[in-house]
Amino acid sequence: MQEINSLKNTERSLNYLDEIKDKDFLFTCVIATTETSCIPGITGAGATPELTKYTPALDTELVVCGKPLSMSEIPQTVVEGSSTPTPAVITRAVVELLDIPFLVVDAGAEIKPKIPYIELNDKPGKDIRTGKAVDKPRSIYEKGKILGKFLSKITEYLIIGESTPAGTTTALGVLTALGYNASFKVSASLPENPHGLKRKVVMEGLKNANIEPGNIDDPFDAVKAVGDPMIPAVAGICAGFKNYITLAGGTQMPAVCALLKEVENFNFSKLAIATTVFVVKDESSDILNIVEQIGDIPVYYVDPHFEKSNHEGLKRYMEGHVKEGVGAGGAMFAAVLKGITTDELRKEIEKVCTVVF
Amino acid sequence: MQEINSLKNTERSLNYLDEIKDKDFLFTCVIATTETSCIPGITGAGATPELTKYTPALDTELVVCGKPLSMSEIPQTVVEGSSTPTPAVITRAVVELLDIPFLVVDAGAEIKPKIPYIELNDKPGKDIRTGKAVDKPRSIYEKGKILGKFLSKITEYLIIGESTPAGTTTALGVLTALGYNASFKVSASLPENPHGLKRKVVMEGLKNANIEPGNIDDPFDAVKAVGDPMIPAVAGICAGFKNYITLAGGTQMPAVCALLKEVENFNFSKLAIATTVFVVKDESSDILNIVEQIGDIPVYYVDPHFEKSNHEGLKRYMEGHVKEGVGAGGAMFAAVLKGITTDELRKEIEKVCTVVF
Repeated sequence: MQEINSLKNTERSLNYLDEIKDKDFLFTCVIATTETSCIPGITGAGATPELTKYTPALDTELVVCGKPLSMSEIPQTVVEGSSTPTPAVITRAVVELLDIPFLVVDAGAEIKPKIPYIELNDKPGKDIRTGKAVDKPRSIYEKGKILGKFLSKITEYLIIGESTPAGTTTALGVLTALGYNASFKVSASLPENPHGLKRKVVMEGLKNANIEPGNIDDPFDAVKAVGDPMIPAVAGICAGFKNYITLAGGTQMPAVCALLKEVENFNFSKLAIATTVFVVKDESSDILNIVEQIGDIPVYYVDPHFEKSNHEGLKRYMEGHVKEGVGAGGAMFAAVLKGITTDELRKEIEKVCTVVF
Repeated sequence: MQEINSLKNTERSLNYLDEIKDKDFLFTCVIATTETSCIPGITGAGATPELTKYTPALDTELVVCGKPLSMSEIPQTVVEGSSTPTPAVITRAVVELLDIPFLVVDAGAEIKPKIPYIELNDKPGKDIRTGKAVDKPRSIYEKGKILGKFLSKITEYLIIGESTPAGTTTALGVLTALGYNASFKVSASLPENPHGLKRKVVMEGLKNANIEPGNIDDPFDAVKAVGDPMIPAVAGICAGFKNYITLAGGTQMPAVCALLKEVENFNFSKLAIATTVFVVKDESSDILNIVEQIGDIPVYYVDPHFEKSNHEGLKRYMEGHVKEGVGAGGAMFAAVLKGITTDELRKEIEKVCTVVF
């Protein structure tokens, strides 16, 4: 557990680790797409903007089956001809090492994975510039609650990851609409964080939805206007689940927490966020600042020390490519919690890369 | 456990009960529809032939939420103006009494339930008279296997029910195509078992598919021609699951077992069937005879003694209406296994009926 780092060394942060470390867990990955990911330059979660719609399906197929099924192409971030593998390789490595039950939840992915998944919402989100991003977010949330209640009966500890291309932009949208200051604080899958573009896209959506930041009647209106379907899905699962939760993700997860706080004044005492060192050390974003605007939520991170790797693609994570996704940070967190060293972990990740690429 | 009856009092039957009685379990219900259920007079699983397409969605909504969501109408068997409630009221009662984790799996229901469910196969089956009933049964089976493997990681004992209108006809189709003698042996949701119609429908499908009973190259061809999508889904889940299984259903479940036997010479040593007294005492069918053609599989049944009930609809079960479905027999089996008496059970079922109707 020495390799689990905490952004906030509070008593709560220490206690949480102690409370969960012996529990069995279930890993769920909530997937969604929005047309927002097709805005050129907004995300690196796919080799081209159009391919971003395939990313959640391919990512989860890779985790479950060890290879993508919906197309032979592997999700990757391509910048100036160099490609960096999807963070799904990290999650796959942990699922293999620990033989974890891994459950895919569709909150609205345009391309559905060719593996069994929980259908929570069929319909993908629109471009948030329209101000009409997500249909019926409250109904997605309510279905998430039913799923959360079901999961309470089968596990005492739940890790929830996500795969949502352009998800930091939609997270910025929801946080901004709900009155949080997240501008220039969300992370990015690209080494150059397109903060200006993200902000412009969000402001256009808010304007078209007639939303004045921080002054909305119903928190679901934030999601409806400028969010994505993953956010109400994960929030609903948390609301229905009765026990310990780790949100496995970067700056998208505070948007989930913000919604939970606004919708039902959620009690965060059994919830934490776990992410990668790449999000935490990213100087173009500030996850801790966003989280602290919401509540006392521990934020953990794990460093897989890709600088020690011989794999060129993984090394590019060190330059700011990809950073997080498919619950990679939370998967590493779980692995370390169960006694795997980051050296063992990195070796398994390299093995997955060798098989897949 | 005195109220659990066994059709075969073998050592295996006794041992199985002993082996599972202290295990926690997960209850899954696999749903599907086919156009076959719209053939007038073939099924009672819905107030009209067209409404049978809604039955699996409404049934599972009732079990999970205590009321149907997709329409206000409750699934029921209507004969000569008298209606008998869906067996989902039995399953709902047990889920309430034992606080069971209940997971819905869509193997191809035309109307999807408005609750979270596992998507295994989106596409409903066609009318088996065409001889082209199910697209890609092998792929449904393979996805079922992945799901079964996942479920192995979260439970050591799995109960699998089904809701498939006209499912005894499609079961007859698969059994016949695979070379088993099931004519005049499958059960029915109607008091007058339309054996002649079922057989005619199956023979027409086999003819159109150019299948000579018992002489097929690939067992999946039986499903493809004259089956339903539930059968390969449940078989696949069984094939992927590593531990104890109870198939909760009537004469549809032997079709699943037959497919398992033909596809991978399945080892039935940890598998049993549990159904209702109404199936077992039905003189127009013979579940034991079908099962014995396949292998040494215990068949249990529970009698909820509806003759003691004041509820007119439940009493009609005594006259041969409905009989089984939504895993009702297996649900009662599980309840009795966990120490609930059939008197307590019947009172809870009556309570569900009062709330729902």
